[in-house]
Amino acid sequence: MAQENLTLVLQARGDLRLENRPVPEPGPNDVVLQMHSVGICGSDVHYWQHGRIGDFVVTKPMVLGHEASGRVVKVGSAVKHLKIGDRVAVEPGVPREMDEFFKNGRYNLSPTIFFCATPPDDGNLCRFYRHSANFCYKLPDNVTFEEGALIEPLSVGIHACRRAGVTLGSTVLICGAGPIGLVSLLVAKAMGASKVIVTDLSAERLAKAEELGADFHLKVTKADGPQQVAKSVEDLLGAQPNCSIECTGAESCLQTAIYSTRSGGVVVVVGHGAPMVTVPLMNAAIREVDIRGVFRYCNTWPMAISMLASGKVNVKPLVTHRFPLEQAGEAFETTRQGLGIKVMLKCDQNDQNP
Amino acid sequence: MAQENLTLVLQARGDLRLENRPVPEPGPNDVVLQMHSVGICGSDVHYWQHGRIGDFVVTKPMVLGHEASGRVVKVGSAVKHLKIGDRVAVEPGVPREMDEFFKNGRYNLSPTIFFCATPPDDGNLCRFYRHSANFCYKLPDNVTFEEGALIEPLSVGIHACRRAGVTLGSTVLICGAGPIGLVSLLVAKAMGASKVIVTDLSAERLAKAEELGADFHLKVTKADGPQQVAKSVEDLLGAQPNCSIECTGAESCLQTAIYSTRSGGVVVVVGHGAPMVTVPLMNAAIREVDIRGVFRYCNTWPMAISMLASGKVNVKPLVTHRFPLEQAGEAFETTRQGLGIKVMLKCDQNDQNP
Amino acid sequence: MAQENLTLVLQARGDLRLENRPVPEPGPNDVVLQMHSVGICGSDVHYWQHGRIGDFVVTKPMVLGHEASGRVVKVGSAVKHLKIGDRVAVEPGVPREMDEFFKNGRYNLSPTIFFCATPPDDGNLCRFYRHSANFCYKLPDNVTFEEGALIEPLSVGIHACRRAGVTLGSTVLICGAGPIGLVSLLVAKAMGASKVIVTDLSAERLAKAEELGADFHLKVTKADGPQQVAKSVEDLLGAQPNCSIECTGAESCLQTAIYSTRSGGVVVVVGHGAPMVTVPLMNAAIREVDIRGVFRYCNTWPMAISMLASGKVNVKPLVTHRFPLEQAGEAFETTRQGLGIKVMLKCDQNDQNP
Amino acid sequence: MAQENLTLVLQARGDLRLENRPVPEPGPNDVVLQMHSVGICGSDVHYWQHGRIGDFVVTKPMVLGHEASGRVVKVGSAVKHLKIGDRVAVEPGVPREMDEFFKNGRYNLSPTIFFCATPPDDGNLCRFYRHSANFCYKLPDNVTFEEGALIEPLSVGIHACRRAGVTLGSTVLICGAGPIGLVSLLVAKAMGASKVIVTDLSAERLAKAEELGADFHLKVTKADGPQQVAKSVEDLLGAQPNCSIECTGAESCLQTAIYSTRSGGVVVVVGHGAPMVTVPLMNAAIREVDIRGVFRYCNTWPMAISMLASGKVNVKPLVTHRFPLEQAGEAFETTRQGLGIKVMLKCDQNDQNP
Repeated sequence: MAQENLTLVLQARGDLRLENRPVPEPGPNDVVLQMHSVGICGSDVHYWQHGRIGDFVVTKPMVLGHEASGRVVKVGSAVKHLKIGDRVAVEPGVPREMDEFFKNGRYNLSPTIFFCATPPDDGNLCRFYRHSANFCYKLPDNVTFEEGALIEPLSVGIHACRRAGVTLGSTVLICGAGPIGLVSLLVAKAMGASKVIVTDLSAERLAKAEELGADFHLKVTKADGPQQVAKSVEDLLGAQPNCSIECTGAESCLQTAIYSTRSGGVVVVVGHGAPMVTVPLMNAAIREVDIRGVFRYCNTWPMAISMLASGKVNVKPLVTHRFPLEQAGEAFETTRQGLGIKVMLKCDQNDQNP
Repeated sequence: MAQENLTLVLQARGDLRLENRPVPEPGPNDVVLQMHSVGICGSDVHYWQHGRIGDFVVTKPMVLGHEASGRVVKVGSAVKHLKIGDRVAVEPGVPREMDEFFKNGRYNLSPTIFFCATPPDDGNLCRFYRHSANFCYKLPDNVTFEEGALIEPLSVGIHACRRAGVTLGSTVLICGAGPIGLVSLLVAKAMGASKVIVTDLSAERLAKAEELGADFHLKVTKADGPQQVAKSVEDLLGAQPNCSIECTGAESCLQTAIYSTRSGGVVVVVGHGAPMVTVPLMNAAIREVDIRGVFRYCNTWPMAISMLASGKVNVKPLVTHRFPLEQAGEAFETTRQGLGIKVMLKCDQNDQNP
Repeated sequence: MAQENLTLVLQARGDLRLENRPVPEPGPNDVVLQMHSVGICGSDVHYWQHGRIGDFVVTKPMVLGHEASGRVVKVGSAVKHLKIGDRVAVEPGVPREMDEFFKNGRYNLSPTIFFCATPPDDGNLCRFYRHSANFCYKLPDNVTFEEGALIEPLSVGIHACRRAGVTLGSTVLICGAGPIGLVSLLVAKAMGASKVIVTDLSAERLAKAEELGADFHLKVTKADGPQQVAKSVEDLLGAQPNCSIECTGAESCLQTAIYSTRSGGVVVVVGHGAPMVTVPLMNAAIREVDIRGVFRYCNTWPMAISMLASGKVNVKPLVTHRFPLEQAGEAFETTRQGLGIKVMLKCDQNDQNP
Repeated sequence: MAQENLTLVLQARGDLRLENRPVPEPGPNDVVLQMHSVGICGSDVHYWQHGRIGDFVVTKPMVLGHEASGRVVKVGSAVKHLKIGDRVAVEPGVPREMDEFFKNGRYNLSPTIFFCATPPDDGNLCRFYRHSANFCYKLPDNVTFEEGALIEPLSVGIHACRRAGVTLGSTVLICGAGPIGLVSLLVAKAMGASKVIVTDLSAERLAKAEELGADFHLKVTKADGPQQVAKSVEDLLGAQPNCSIECTGAESCLQTAIYSTRSGGVVVVVGHGAPMVTVPLMNAAIREVDIRGVFRYCNTWPMAISMLASGKVNVKPLVTHRFPLEQAGEAFETTRQGLGIKVMLKCDQNDQNP
């Protein structure tokens, strides 16, 4: 008897549908997972609303979802490190070619990488999903499926803090208290940052940042000048921060991040904004403030699992809403309206626990 | 009226005396401190007992003490960043020459550096002490004098963990649960290590390590083979550690550290032992396990103060004994017998608080 | 009998005068030099023509010149490594304070640094000049005074290539074939770059670049689009360069540098341009192309002397004009007109040799 | 008609035979090469003479050879970047698993890696050889087959110099003027080293080093004390070297390398010696001289090809002997006797050119 495989498909811009698809079979190096928890990312909503992000355009139906965890139900013939029943977190990017980037350990930069729910590659908002076994990581018993799914956004925070050079005693400015700003905050504190300040337009989001460990927060308005905000950041911290992590994509925040950062420090650009921006590049250059981008992440799942298992990082407060997969429409609408922080879709009808 | 300046002088090997010395005057770039808390280090005891450490030989009377904090009572004419009354922690190493090491930011390696209580340079176990203002760091109100004095051993831990490359999710082996092993443990956890295992011969010391946050401990005996201990470490952690910090100086522990460390990892040599040692260097070489030494520290006081002020590291439990300066003999005897962890001498007659 | 000390003073914007000043006496850590060769830098001309560079404004008379070498004629009482008669190259930046930047080995970023011919600090276009002995470096016999003076611009190239991460087999784009572009070219080749491509508006400058070892050159026009130039660079090299060194300060060249650089690579910003620029920052960010500034240099004189002494770098062809100090006006006019590459002023009446 | 595939097989210790084997067929990700030039490595001779190197034991017949180049004659169905007729160099190590080492860009440390002519994996001293296409690199027209084969030993030099941190103006001690010492010399000079000193027991080898660009050489004897040699090195260079590359495996040379290296520098261990060695580890530790091993290499072929194509490195003088594959026995005997530097086997009957 054929199994049902309810799947959330973006047919085209604005047209999101649940449909039944065949349950996949694993290739020799794959596993098939019964999906358990899949978080909704801003990019999922963006594809739904706009049909594209930059040069990535939805030109044919695409399954959404890439923050995921599930249980192994089928194992490919060549797979050695996983077995049926294992609970795993899914790293959504899988290099297709063994190019220079992969060989150098920066596989996230490989131009031909497969990535869940980036056109034309399907994501994993479904009941059963096939993935490269090498990019599925076994979860310890004391890490929940939802924590496993949250490793994806957490990885962005890890990669951002790593590229920012956060270390013992660092002072850090984080622009934006959305999900990525918040995971960056959690990671910065876990890496030894002594003072983290978070800025946002929303008092509610800043309250969440404070709850998650921000040492300072600064409510900004669109009228504030970047140099003025930089001055306030310095005043609150007692000195300019060693690094700044920009998570909003707003031009004014990029400017703020550059003006704020101490000479010799780092600005990490995480938020995506307009292709061309006007920034005080000379100010950065003559103070040797490096500007570094972040494209997804690489080599983060093992350390993230290690942190979650040891209790060094607590991501559970990030989940504010849960919906069964059948109510995906409502779940997406919740995210679209900016309610809460992270909306989690529960894909296993028999287990809707965290 | 001339002020008294009670000072602890090592006249020669085995001959420790309290004597009164003139209160110093500051040079233009100096401050004079009224000393408050000075910890006793194993090296102080070693000079007392043996009159030398390696090539450093006590050939004339030397004031002991280099883990210190105090209050500014006189300020040199060119000093701008300190004023009378400031509470400061003392970095005991002050480069004498602007050589290549200083210019490159590794001033601890400067061969002509001044260093408190390393022959022939005097330390600061006294009532009033003169030091380069540039190597005195103002303490925030919420950091105690004793925490300030403990920045010196803490700095060894910071430098060791930094050279070990400890970061988020690292697993760390620390050989030895003495003061340096314990501060390395505190720092490793603060830097995001997920699992730290500490080894020692003494169950009592290991209990302290566990109290301070060690995830695992392993009681070893002198009969244990290094490869056998390495196997136990791997079994307890579930995998070989990313790095090992050797704090005992014992040849067998160096061997253990090498065998234990994961390929591509780092062994940091902190403990001082015999000049020539027999080690499995090929085992390290063909697995690209780097062996890195630690000589004191550099650029650690600001980050240490930042960590203490923010409460990220708690060094207070390290202080197990306190004596007024007048009872220095008893204090040194306590350290010599290996009782407790850190013995603190209180140099200010009017304030014997932590 | 008082010695003459002919000195080139910028009285105010546009007003350059030779005047006689007293011969200085050394402080304890200083030396006094009889100047031999001093190159004219674009910044010298800029102060003369505009009276300011960014926030640095000439508000009182200032001696110009900072690319210099000379012979020790007086030695301060505390100086050990130099003696009368030594031929030295002058590093023009001398930190005034032992701040965090100096202690960390990035003293060029110290906000209170003394720097020759940056207002309000005097430069060394004179007969006799006093400087910190720690920032005077003895020249080997086989390195000429002019080579010694050229270490200053060469240092910019060293620091730029170092921050660009140039290494064995690197491919490098250099925008601009002026003096800084050319020294960057020389250094990149000496560091093992396999292919260097240089762009400029001027065919004459590009010819010089080719003469100095450029593997490719590309003549651009102001009408060329940055993406079009990037495409040409990729076509000529056979692949995108690993790093780009921007030496023009032009906004379009910054854009070209970003578009050109391979994912995971580095753009180094050396040329000074407008405070606010419009750049494709997202393009850099999502390909993790780092943007790093260069502010002067630090820790370059010893390695530069080493390279010159060993013949690994030949800077001699950079000197295209020579004038005695008495003809400083003509020399500055030559540089202002953009004739040749490097104009050298000869300050020693008895030795006008290279 | 079946093609002949003459193959050099080590049947067992001391038993080297040429035999005919079937011509292999490529898997989907493989290519089959008509071998052209294969160098003999010391390890090939060691397996022949001793049947083992450390824990790697020859327990069944094994094809020798891993310094190789050839021409593509068959292409697997999934291979995109190579076609029949392409001339390629062979990287002999091919990771079998996508483990943490591979994902991190240090695939040479993967414990399950395939490696030509390391038991039990076959090498490529034959007429036709199958290899992973991802580890075959196309040679430009101006790079010969023999240069292509020499990329393997050159890669050891690249990896050693990279791990030594050789850069512009570095001074380098190389212990041993055998093939690996010589390629390290070539690479160090190409990376910008200003002074390289090479030591050896043999005047003849040192003459070769000087021919290849060594700035200094030092003939040592087995009676010389390590500290005495270190003193001579310092005297010749005028200062201690920044780094030392140990290529002999001799305990005394390891000691010399440690004593010689400047504080804060690096000793790279390339030569393989006894499992347990007695070394002045404390001397290294308290001067923060890092000891780093080298296990083969990773990510070196593209940069090596780039260097050879641009003429930055000339490896051609390393080839001192050539034999057709049919005379493999004589070739191995030549290497065993230590004659010349590199013996090249010519596997293509119709093209015995370099």
